[in-house]
Amino acid sequence: MKIKISIIGASGYTGQELLRLLSNHANAEVIHITSRKYLGKTASAAFPQLRNTKYAELEFEKADTAAFSSDSDVVFLALPHGESMEYAKKISTRVIDLSADYRFSDIPLYEKWYKPHSDAKTASAATYGLADLYAEKIKDSRIIGNPGCYPTSVLLPLLPLANVNALTGTININSFSGITGAGASPGPKTHFPMINENVMPYSIGNHRHLPEIQEKLRLEGFEHSVVFTPSLIPVDRGIISVITTKTNRNVSQIEEIYNNVYAKSPFVSFSATEFPNLKQARNTNNCIFAFNIQNTNDLLIISVIDNILKGASGQAIQNMNIMFGLDEKEGLNNIAFV
Amino acid sequence: MKIKISIIGASGYTGQELLRLLSNHANAEVIHITSRKYLGKTASAAFPQLRNTKYAELEFEKADTAAFSSDSDVVFLALPHGESMEYAKKISTRVIDLSADYRFSDIPLYEKWYKPHSDAKTASAATYGLADLYAEKIKDSRIIGNPGCYPTSVLLPLLPLANVNALTGTININSFSGITGAGASPGPKTHFPMINENVMPYSIGNHRHLPEIQEKLRLEGFEHSVVFTPSLIPVDRGIISVITTKTNRNVSQIEEIYNNVYAKSPFVSFSATEFPNLKQARNTNNCIFAFNIQNTNDLLIISVIDNILKGASGQAIQNMNIMFGLDEKEGLNNIAFV
Amino acid sequence: MKIKISIIGASGYTGQELLRLLSNHANAEVIHITSRKYLGKTASAAFPQLRNTKYAELEFEKADTAAFSSDSDVVFLALPHGESMEYAKKISTRVIDLSADYRFSDIPLYEKWYKPHSDAKTASAATYGLADLYAEKIKDSRIIGNPGCYPTSVLLPLLPLANVNALTGTININSFSGITGAGASPGPKTHFPMINENVMPYSIGNHRHLPEIQEKLRLEGFEHSVVFTPSLIPVDRGIISVITTKTNRNVSQIEEIYNNVYAKSPFVSFSATEFPNLKQARNTNNCIFAFNIQNTNDLLIISVIDNILKGASGQAIQNMNIMFGLDEKEGLNNIAFV
Amino acid sequence: MKIKISIIGASGYTGQELLRLLSNHANAEVIHITSRKYLGKTASAAFPQLRNTKYAELEFEKADTAAFSSDSDVVFLALPHGESMEYAKKISTRVIDLSADYRFSDIPLYEKWYKPHSDAKTASAATYGLADLYAEKIKDSRIIGNPGCYPTSVLLPLLPLANVNALTGTININSFSGITGAGASPGPKTHFPMINENVMPYSIGNHRHLPEIQEKLRLEGFEHSVVFTPSLIPVDRGIISVITTKTNRNVSQIEEIYNNVYAKSPFVSFSATEFPNLKQARNTNNCIFAFNIQNTNDLLIISVIDNILKGASGQAIQNMNIMFGLDEKEGLNNIAFV
Repeated sequence: MKIKISIIGASGYTGQELLRLLSNHANAEVIHITSRKYLGKTASAAFPQLRNTKYAELEFEKADTAAFSSDSDVVFLALPHGESMEYAKKISTRVIDLSADYRFSDIPLYEKWYKPHSDAKTASAATYGLADLYAEKIKDSRIIGNPGCYPTSVLLPLLPLANVNALTGTININSFSGITGAGASPGPKTHFPMINENVMPYSIGNHRHLPEIQEKLRLEGFEHSVVFTPSLIPVDRGIISVITTKTNRNVSQIEEIYNNVYAKSPFVSFSATEFPNLKQARNTNNCIFAFNIQNTNDLLIISVIDNILKGASGQAIQNMNIMFGLDEKEGLNNIAFV
Repeated sequence: MKIKISIIGASGYTGQELLRLLSNHANAEVIHITSRKYLGKTASAAFPQLRNTKYAELEFEKADTAAFSSDSDVVFLALPHGESMEYAKKISTRVIDLSADYRFSDIPLYEKWYKPHSDAKTASAATYGLADLYAEKIKDSRIIGNPGCYPTSVLLPLLPLANVNALTGTININSFSGITGAGASPGPKTHFPMINENVMPYSIGNHRHLPEIQEKLRLEGFEHSVVFTPSLIPVDRGIISVITTKTNRNVSQIEEIYNNVYAKSPFVSFSATEFPNLKQARNTNNCIFAFNIQNTNDLLIISVIDNILKGASGQAIQNMNIMFGLDEKEGLNNIAFV
Repeated sequence: MKIKISIIGASGYTGQELLRLLSNHANAEVIHITSRKYLGKTASAAFPQLRNTKYAELEFEKADTAAFSSDSDVVFLALPHGESMEYAKKISTRVIDLSADYRFSDIPLYEKWYKPHSDAKTASAATYGLADLYAEKIKDSRIIGNPGCYPTSVLLPLLPLANVNALTGTININSFSGITGAGASPGPKTHFPMINENVMPYSIGNHRHLPEIQEKLRLEGFEHSVVFTPSLIPVDRGIISVITTKTNRNVSQIEEIYNNVYAKSPFVSFSATEFPNLKQARNTNNCIFAFNIQNTNDLLIISVIDNILKGASGQAIQNMNIMFGLDEKEGLNNIAFV
Repeated sequence: MKIKISIIGASGYTGQELLRLLSNHANAEVIHITSRKYLGKTASAAFPQLRNTKYAELEFEKADTAAFSSDSDVVFLALPHGESMEYAKKISTRVIDLSADYRFSDIPLYEKWYKPHSDAKTASAATYGLADLYAEKIKDSRIIGNPGCYPTSVLLPLLPLANVNALTGTININSFSGITGAGASPGPKTHFPMINENVMPYSIGNHRHLPEIQEKLRLEGFEHSVVFTPSLIPVDRGIISVITTKTNRNVSQIEEIYNNVYAKSPFVSFSATEFPNLKQARNTNNCIFAFNIQNTNDLLIISVIDNILKGASGQAIQNMNIMFGLDEKEGLNNIAFV
């Protein structure tokens, strides 16, 4: 038996990646893909890399929420913030939304940073799909707000520590993202001669992933401040977050906390000695992090993910696997060296 | 039933890639991997990207040609030129050699460009594994000389034309390769500040892939000269070859020639109008090429492949699939966007 | 005494570079810079890299052709094709135009590839500013059509051979350009995730620099065909052209031809043995090329330049130096390693 | 009158850059350059980019400390740590040392992180050449320890605040350096396919620039801990440091502190609103930084420099200019866009 799947907005980087991943998923059958830009074209006509893959000849359609609700087991929404909710509220089957629209419990907080919410009640009750921590709740949820890419990279190492009050000061987060994180539309910041050979800090102190990070930390009991500074770096894929804060635990206590939470997690690995580099997570659904403690209580954490996989489409598939009782890893073991 | 596989020399880029590809191959079971460098380590300890994949815990062993001959259906050799033959001649099971040692029919030619051959008789009778053209012969071969990366990118478009005497002048080949093509060992040419923001022609007029290209063209009847100029470019993966020559055919005649040869080929696609870019082949086993004719008889061909996949390990798996009567595409549909 | 200079269109890559170069030019005084985009801003406000340089506080004005004609010794036009002529025809002082508008002797040829010309008579008599070959004519010219970047890289090695009928077959030119060559405006082709890790052929058989190359070769007596294939490569700056053709001369004859023409040229260097890489020309006004002959009469030439310097603004300054009787090298010795 | 200069170790990145910068310095005359690797070659034979520059024909010699002491006004040492002191102690003229050997006041601290010091007394009294802060002392010094690249990027924004006790907590420094910072010798970390598309943290908690940063902060009165985390990024040049700490001042108080210190500094610019990107400092001798305060007392500073210029050779020339009473900017206005 195969899960029937629709993807609304399959032409951006995250939508393409869903299609690629699902083409190697043993229990998945993509039946609809939509795109205004490529309407009527086949997937491989739009994206030559899809030649020879399962969905090469699948055609982009118009989004039909009623039809998809009745013939799909799950609908992925890979749409801009604000647009997602307009589709989600008309869909009666299960939904995994890759935008920010269903990530916040606190809807006024969402509205302060994004825009007025037209589906607030459902959104405030939706499940935050941080798959490696919240699988129990995800399992039975109808609507998943798939986490942001930066938040995923920092919440996986931070939330288990916040939960046991092990963090005792400001959390300073410096995150560096590959340019696919900025989307598929050209702009001055992503013009090659501008960002090549460059590192570009942006949205200093006011990036929309800051309130997402803050809310999730607060829900686990964290009460201090967060400083979040994102930058673009000249690589295609990947996020590396360098995090510094204060802790009241020692190295082996922190190892134990992580062991309790992630011992059986296939996608999270951590170390107190070997720090990862960005490329080790590239093209995987893994979050790899390492930490140490300097000067008694200065905690340093470095965390790497692939922004399109663990930071978006990979985690979305992982959420689907959890929701439908499949092996969490199904469809997520396609990796590429270099 | 699964094919039992040994990989000798699994720690370079091509060996790693074989392991990655075979971890998603439905009919393959890798039972031995060898590496002097990583002896005793697990695959994922050596290459963190292999975490969560099928062979993550497989250990690097010493190469044991007798044992591997008896328990393996096929042995892949991912070794330097000259070393391969020393192993191959002691292996009695089927062999796919990724070095140059079994690529040449003309052993004196090999010896002129490489070194004295210690397994000349077997080598001269080995099959040149250009999978999309020579499948019939590959099927029943015991030893395959897997083609060089540059030759693969140029022979796929050129040999069908040579075969019907459609090429009437010098063939000028300008090929540009990503740096993984230079191997995993650091050196002055691959030092980041040297090759980043650079294009570096090398081995002008004397690259070892020139005689390989010439021999295969000659065997199809081509009698003119070949000028082959390779360069390194600052990308990880991929080869783009820009080829110019003279032809006595017109566009539709050439299309027909290609159609006859490649109509059913899953990995070769061609066009008389849409020229490919390098990234369209990246992380795929495809060879994508396009051609046009200018000034009546000036033929231009642009061909792209992924040097580690179609140019090495991908084609090696394709050869294995052909040798064992499997679907040619099995294990070769893992692709990555961007 | 200092040459008074105006730069119209100083906000693109070539305009910025003119300003940078002229800030270290002993005999130059930039008195006007214009930009619609940065009108009223200072140069260093628009381009932070200009801090601490001579023109950091110079303000962008509106272009005033009458005023500039009277107070400037020379006006540089760094404008799009078609716009340049509208300004040039109103300027009575000396003009160095970096667009294509004054490059063609054959105006119908220009109009076929570009657009109707509104200043045809002047244009057809303008001097083609290939500085290392045509200094004698440049010296006394009022209007210079500064050559295109690709043409500069190929004409410097080819014209001396064409001039003595040493080229006997089709010229195949494969040129690869850094992304600054595509200008400062973002677009799909220059979006970082599109062109990074890529090589992108474009305008196959119909790039506007083809007729420019053809006309200049024809004027030196060349009668065969030209195949010109440009591609974008993921570097900021630089053009490398790989050229193949047939010759009736041997290596030492060709060396002698080049020696006769370039022996005293400070910016052109050539070799029959050591092939240059792209980075050796980066940030310099040099054209470095090498050649060899294979198979008796197959001539290979590889030529490298910096597209913004020798391919645009550097050559423009060189033309100015020639026009005003200065040392050709003045202002052109600012180089950067790596 | 020109300053007579010797450069010992002119073949690494910093030595090359000294030669390039000094070729455009109005008051400098380089009379000796040394290199074991290029002994007997000319500068332009070793580095083709130097063609057409002032020192193109200057030959690499053997280092002769006695001769250089008598005919040079100043000797630059661009040598590895530990080697510099062996030369410096035999030189009686003025010395600007680009290694770490003369950077520390606390010699046991040097010896703990580097190696036994053979010129301890001189070293402990040498001047730390942080040119934009310590010009008064530099002016009359005989031996300058030119600062490390990372320290330069962080000490320029931090020391003025430390000096007035404005920093009240741990300083967290995340610095990202281009690969030229790792030197010109190839190694596994700088192999293109390893570091391209990657970010690589290294020497976590034990990088040798940590004690240099700590000593200089301590000397200005700072008493808290420092966490320093460097990473390599896939760019040729540049360092960006993202710094977070606590402060007891507000934005305008900090602006005033910086204004007092840097108001007249040509190479330091700062802002409380516009955060710099790495490329704005590339190929310049500038340090550009910006800061803001979040959550009342969380201070964020982002600082960018060019690691070879302001972080090494540029600052060394600036120190020379100060030592000889020249305009601080002389020879340092060669910039390159893009």
